[in-house]
Amino acid sequence: MVVTVIGLGLIGGSTAIDIRRHKFADHIIGVDNDPINASGAQHIGIVDEICEFEDGVRRADLILVAVPVNAALKVLPAVLDIINDNQVVADMCSVKSKLGDWVKYHPKRQRYVASHPMAGTEYSGPWAAKANMFEGKVAILCDTEESDVAAVSLVRRMYEAMNMRIIYMNSANHDVHTAYVSAISHISSFALALTVLDKEKNEKHIFDLASGGFDSTVRLAKSSAAMWQPIFEQNKDNVLIVLDTYIKYLQEFKKNLEADDNKAVYDMIDQANKIRRVLK
Amino acid sequence: MVVTVIGLGLIGGSTAIDIRRHKFADHIIGVDNDPINASGAQHIGIVDEICEFEDGVRRADLILVAVPVNAALKVLPAVLDIINDNQVVADMCSVKSKLGDWVKYHPKRQRYVASHPMAGTEYSGPWAAKANMFEGKVAILCDTEESDVAAVSLVRRMYEAMNMRIIYMNSANHDVHTAYVSAISHISSFALALTVLDKEKNEKHIFDLASGGFDSTVRLAKSSAAMWQPIFEQNKDNVLIVLDTYIKYLQEFKKNLEADDNKAVYDMIDQANKIRRVLK
Repeated sequence: MVVTVIGLGLIGGSTAIDIRRHKFADHIIGVDNDPINASGAQHIGIVDEICEFEDGVRRADLILVAVPVNAALKVLPAVLDIINDNQVVADMCSVKSKLGDWVKYHPKRQRYVASHPMAGTEYSGPWAAKANMFEGKVAILCDTEESDVAAVSLVRRMYEAMNMRIIYMNSANHDVHTAYVSAISHISSFALALTVLDKEKNEKHIFDLASGGFDSTVRLAKSSAAMWQPIFEQNKDNVLIVLDTYIKYLQEFKKNLEADDNKAVYDMIDQANKIRRVLK
Repeated sequence: MVVTVIGLGLIGGSTAIDIRRHKFADHIIGVDNDPINASGAQHIGIVDEICEFEDGVRRADLILVAVPVNAALKVLPAVLDIINDNQVVADMCSVKSKLGDWVKYHPKRQRYVASHPMAGTEYSGPWAAKANMFEGKVAILCDTEESDVAAVSLVRRMYEAMNMRIIYMNSANHDVHTAYVSAISHISSFALALTVLDKEKNEKHIFDLASGGFDSTVRLAKSSAAMWQPIFEQNKDNVLIVLDTYIKYLQEFKKNLEADDNKAVYDMIDQANKIRRVLK
């Protein structure tokens, strides 16, 4: 099986590592419009060779689109324009509805499988790629009724080879769910970083005090703007609803604290503690 | 050295474990007004014996007050009322100004050392106590000019025995700094948990999608209300300032997203990324 990975960052690079290790792919071609990423990925052995876009697409059995969601709006139709009826293309993007709508009436739509492997770190680029990042995590396949059965089956087998758990969902539900568990976590972390950096201008030693709690909460604030701005843009409607709810709770907390309503503050924390029942 | 630990929760229990392991204490007495905590701590071997408050205080060379900050307002003066000029008491609380003001004119003030070992987990009680939790972390000693030199020296030696790094700071600065790096992390996490739990009422499967980012951001939301409500109460003025800044950034993010100002969203994330320069 020849697999071409378009976009040799954290997701594309880590996927390349795992599909080789698990013997799903025999030969991996890399495509990246950033020559530094491309040569880096080849140099560290993530891909067997680097190709131009069209050549890379034509030579593959399976093409993986692992670029930021805004770039995918250009890359995915361009792939569909080229491939034949024996080839399959899957994207690995974090927002699904807009991309799905975008190619809905493309004559090759059935060769495309919409997917989102839910794993990552706050780092980016091929140097951030690592083995086993996807192990045991969830891969979501969206709107599979719009893809050929054989195409879905191939992509499912790839994620199974990577030891991922498959969940099927339509794009609209996917985008609501990820707004809650992924987008808002990142926004809260970005705002936290901005708050603390604001203060740090005057207080050089504040980070001496940063203990484990702060580190883990603010970790996501290192996540790349090039990846996340387009995610928020494409999932804007859902993200705004969640962000409203989030700000509403913060304002309620503030109001209770200002009013010295200790019981209300206690009760909000106690209610938040119920997250224990759903997290490890 | 006989050490009495008042409050056998995560902090008191973990301290007891480490000062025994590092041979700072020969005999450890536990005091806790919750009989379940007390017998639990004795049963799992964190303390050598359990005593009533007054007996426990009288028999110790060093008394550690490791109770929530509201309880400390009662416990610390009660300890100072009993101890003699050869004994030392240190608190381990997360807010310092109010407690410091509270005992400022106590005739035994000089036997008291205000301290805050900055480490913890989101769990509580003696069963959450663990060895090495403080290793390499920062212990802050506050307002040491108000304590006897020998008392400060004893407490410093204890934290050094626990392999902690000592930082000196006045209470007012301590409370500003911890509002930024600790309180706001917890509030952001509590609000995140509330937001997602709100949604979960209707969407049972939302947590199937919770990946690493969500887990680490919401982890602190498991932290105990009994510990944190009093911290917010005692550090109210600083916490409200930080919370205002935090909400302001979230509202700015929301406004930019609503206005489709992609460059402004990008720039906010890019600015937040500067947290990389101060975090590992």
